[in-house]
Amino acid sequence: MNTDKNRPLILVSNDDGIEAAGVHRLVEWLSALGDVVCVCPDSPRSGQSMAITVNSPLRLTSLPDYKGTRMHKANGTPTDCVKLAMHQVLDRRPDLVVAGINHGSNAAVNVVYSGTMGAVMEGCAFGIPSIGFSLTDHSPDADFSPCRFLTEKIVKAVLTDGLPDGVCLNVNFPAGHSELNEMRIVRAARGKWTDEYEAYTDPHGYPFYWLKGKFENEEPDATDTDEWCLAHGITSVVPTLLDRTVPGLISLPSLSLS
Amino acid sequence: MNTDKNRPLILVSNDDGIEAAGVHRLVEWLSALGDVVCVCPDSPRSGQSMAITVNSPLRLTSLPDYKGTRMHKANGTPTDCVKLAMHQVLDRRPDLVVAGINHGSNAAVNVVYSGTMGAVMEGCAFGIPSIGFSLTDHSPDADFSPCRFLTEKIVKAVLTDGLPDGVCLNVNFPAGHSELNEMRIVRAARGKWTDEYEAYTDPHGYPFYWLKGKFENEEPDATDTDEWCLAHGITSVVPTLLDRTVPGLISLPSLSLS
Repeated sequence: MNTDKNRPLILVSNDDGIEAAGVHRLVEWLSALGDVVCVCPDSPRSGQSMAITVNSPLRLTSLPDYKGTRMHKANGTPTDCVKLAMHQVLDRRPDLVVAGINHGSNAAVNVVYSGTMGAVMEGCAFGIPSIGFSLTDHSPDADFSPCRFLTEKIVKAVLTDGLPDGVCLNVNFPAGHSELNEMRIVRAARGKWTDEYEAYTDPHGYPFYWLKGKFENEEPDATDTDEWCLAHGITSVVPTLLDRTVPGLISLPSLSLS
Repeated sequence: MNTDKNRPLILVSNDDGIEAAGVHRLVEWLSALGDVVCVCPDSPRSGQSMAITVNSPLRLTSLPDYKGTRMHKANGTPTDCVKLAMHQVLDRRPDLVVAGINHGSNAAVNVVYSGTMGAVMEGCAFGIPSIGFSLTDHSPDADFSPCRFLTEKIVKAVLTDGLPDGVCLNVNFPAGHSELNEMRIVRAARGKWTDEYEAYTDPHGYPFYWLKGKFENEEPDATDTDEWCLAHGITSVVPTLLDRTVPGLISLPSLSLS
């Protein structure tokens, strides 16, 4: 697939699937800033984290262009989509990987489960500046238009300046605001999911369970967190690491002698 | 389910599925150190990272005891198994979550894709000391016996001393050694997967892809890394974070004005 080498190449993916509104808005907005190629899961893959498809084959399908952008779908996870794009779709290394706009929050601990951030962290694993965008509104008809100003601003900044190696961005927009102009660089709030399953009985008398849950922010007054920003109408930008090692080797005295 | 409140309660899971040899060895060894309950995926779920099952129901099935340990399987990911165990199986909070022993390495960047470490990080999300064990041998018949000495040592140490909040352990054993007595606390080596897909044509003439790949260690001489340890017959212990925020808020000058 030939791309325009005179423009930045931007790979776009998501976890809500190729039909989601959020990714179509991203494609529209970003195509003014670069040459965009879109590779998304063929169906919703929320909560897929950085899952990869190891034990079954993957299909990659080219779709009709959307407003001039090449669209592709794959029967895999968001991370699979980025891997497939890098190896099978793109004719050169992209300048940026962008995922979203997610229908729903990926703030706080949600970042670890997020398929959107799975695509972003895979971009980061390839050493490419990568950004995830999410709006705290799960509705398929969510209004993404207030996100446009800061999305473009952040993408332009990262295309110009890049990001530190191994660092990607997790951007969350608060829903319910007609204008979003303020953003802050913050950390992920500490919090937990509770009350996580609805228990049912099937027509044959056997139990089954469905994931639900309620997020409890453990530090609602911490102004340097993403959850605080979102509660106050401010867009949160969390610089996020691919590497998981605790920085500075911690001492575990009881393990010191083998 | 009633557990013995006078002994430490240890939840065991894995990503290779309930039939894997690695988890049976763990169950055998750990049942001498505590009251063990095992909840594993009903089939192999390698590469599931911290994926959760959002859009379909989960089943949880009790199986016959294995050498006195209660065994359960679920049709979900490793992270689902830990969540289900916490909410639907255990009668009290476990003292420890242990996953593995994985058939294959989870060193370096593999930690981000690992379903074994997905279970461990979910334990960590619940605030429970959590440890993942992996042997660098993918064989279903891998010999786990050399791992016993250090597995017991590490589990005893963590049962006694706990772990810092938000930190879990990613332990990798090098295959091909009849004795494993030495371990080091190290960081994940930097490296990349390359050559990631085998391309095929199906009988109807359509292409499909299967994930493969080759891991390239970008710093083979760095003695403070897991890959270096494994290459030198030493067991690696990587203290691993659940939180992904870059520590110390980084400055991104071009984002500073909104």
